[in-house]
Amino acid sequence: MSDLPTHVHITEVGPREGFQFEPPHIATADKIRLIDALSQTGVPEIECASFVNPKVVPQMADVFQIADGITRHAGVTYGCMWLNEKGFHQAISSGLYTPALTSTSASDTFLMRNNNRTPDAQIAGQIALRQAYSDAGLGSGPIYLFTAFGCNYEGAVSVEQAMLRAADLVAVCEDAGTPPTCITLCDTVGAADPAGVRALVEAVRTRWPDYPVALHLHDTRGLGIANAMAGLELGVARFDASVGGLGGCPFARNRSAAGNIATEELALLCDRLGIETGIDIPALIKAAELAETIVAHPLSSKLAHAGLFTPKP
Amino acid sequence: MSDLPTHVHITEVGPREGFQFEPPHIATADKIRLIDALSQTGVPEIECASFVNPKVVPQMADVFQIADGITRHAGVTYGCMWLNEKGFHQAISSGLYTPALTSTSASDTFLMRNNNRTPDAQIAGQIALRQAYSDAGLGSGPIYLFTAFGCNYEGAVSVEQAMLRAADLVAVCEDAGTPPTCITLCDTVGAADPAGVRALVEAVRTRWPDYPVALHLHDTRGLGIANAMAGLELGVARFDASVGGLGGCPFARNRSAAGNIATEELALLCDRLGIETGIDIPALIKAAELAETIVAHPLSSKLAHAGLFTPKP
Repeated sequence: MSDLPTHVHITEVGPREGFQFEPPHIATADKIRLIDALSQTGVPEIECASFVNPKVVPQMADVFQIADGITRHAGVTYGCMWLNEKGFHQAISSGLYTPALTSTSASDTFLMRNNNRTPDAQIAGQIALRQAYSDAGLGSGPIYLFTAFGCNYEGAVSVEQAMLRAADLVAVCEDAGTPPTCITLCDTVGAADPAGVRALVEAVRTRWPDYPVALHLHDTRGLGIANAMAGLELGVARFDASVGGLGGCPFARNRSAAGNIATEELALLCDRLGIETGIDIPALIKAAELAETIVAHPLSSKLAHAGLFTPKP
Repeated sequence: MSDLPTHVHITEVGPREGFQFEPPHIATADKIRLIDALSQTGVPEIECASFVNPKVVPQMADVFQIADGITRHAGVTYGCMWLNEKGFHQAISSGLYTPALTSTSASDTFLMRNNNRTPDAQIAGQIALRQAYSDAGLGSGPIYLFTAFGCNYEGAVSVEQAMLRAADLVAVCEDAGTPPTCITLCDTVGAADPAGVRALVEAVRTRWPDYPVALHLHDTRGLGIANAMAGLELGVARFDASVGGLGGCPFARNRSAAGNIATEELALLCDRLGIETGIDIPALIKAAELAETIVAHPLSSKLAHAGLFTPKP
């Protein structure tokens, strides 16, 4: 465990990715309440919303109210996502943090089935988006590689295929004179295992030693925290996670499938390994309880249910 | 990951440890149905019951009916547990597999609070039990060290303290001329983390290189599969686990806390790492679904809910 990082940056994605998966009836005030609670847990970055078509994703119809309603704390970054230029301009106007993100899927079949795009069309779209970022005065930003370890259509995605699509995105960024700030490998459908995480992280590191690797892991099949451990052992120092394990997986066989790895469990793992996250775990467990109250069904986090391991007198 | 074993033996403990935690109304026929289903999943060993005082543990009042009612498949070992000589003789008479087990707690406080015994009294009891085993014609058997990584009274248990109590048990076995068949380190309350697993496994290995190490892990705080991974990386080749994650933790803050690591998730991890378990994972997921139906509440296994990662055409 010699390559463990000394500090890990965890981005809380529950309000964006989690609420997107829930039925659309959750009150805007509750979403704001959760983001405000998360703001006081030491989590350094919170993804608040997606700027997407509300006809397609009605859960995100209140993104501007959320952006206006939250109480912004110093030291916390309030981010968001988008898929195209229209969404990007909305994101800018919301005042949320808008890093210049470029993305594609490692699985070409997933890209076609889920986004109706060929790899070439996707890259053309990313070049146009990258130009819009430059026009808006943004410099370098992160790369997101979806389905980096597998998808529900193709099964496992090979390291070679994932590297091919990662290289497409790196070229988009480098050609624009804005090398990526990090390469986020996303286990979109919960297909990864520790050996696969190790293989892809090492391949990306070897090819692009100057670009930090981040991991966006899902716990769909219960291996999420072992996958995170594999990343930590290689020195990966940026992770996405969701409070309480808020969210799910639209690509699993039913709605009871788990979502992202739980932020408080990842924070506990880091804490036990002597890695700083800045997170107040008891406060985060309370936020997970609030999230569970808001969605009105049990969340998948085990730590949130058991509580911290505090000795009884 | 160079020390990964080529084969892992998983003992299914759900029918014993899981049903012991559930309310006592579960029908004997349902318990038998689950054991029979598990018998056809390739799991090599199933802990069926505990021979304990039914006034104290009413869930185990039907142990003899279970032993009589199950259909025993060739190649499957049907085991059980007990805490004292009376229980041992009942276990023998049931015809279930009765390895000569000796046990204590690494945490002296836990032993006193939970079993009302000092370490010396516990060891005296284990010497008497070991004599009863010899009188019954049993040879060597496994050691179980409970609360090996921590307990709810003392907090973390140091490697030194765990080694002290492990040495007590090794002496009981060696002094009787029956060296232990394995040393099972039990994370009874879900206190372990990968660094702690590594430290204690390495200490036990260094001191007793001839005795295999086994791990009995709980997923109370979501780190169970990462702890299993740490064990696998050190070559640990024997694990306990429970189907669907059946069970819970009486030492956590509420009844919604998770139980043992889920057998199907451990089997998936092994499969992904190229380690044989002999387990048919889809069949085990079906057994987990049956277990969930029997207990009539959601179990904690994520794989059981999401299903295997099978590509859609």
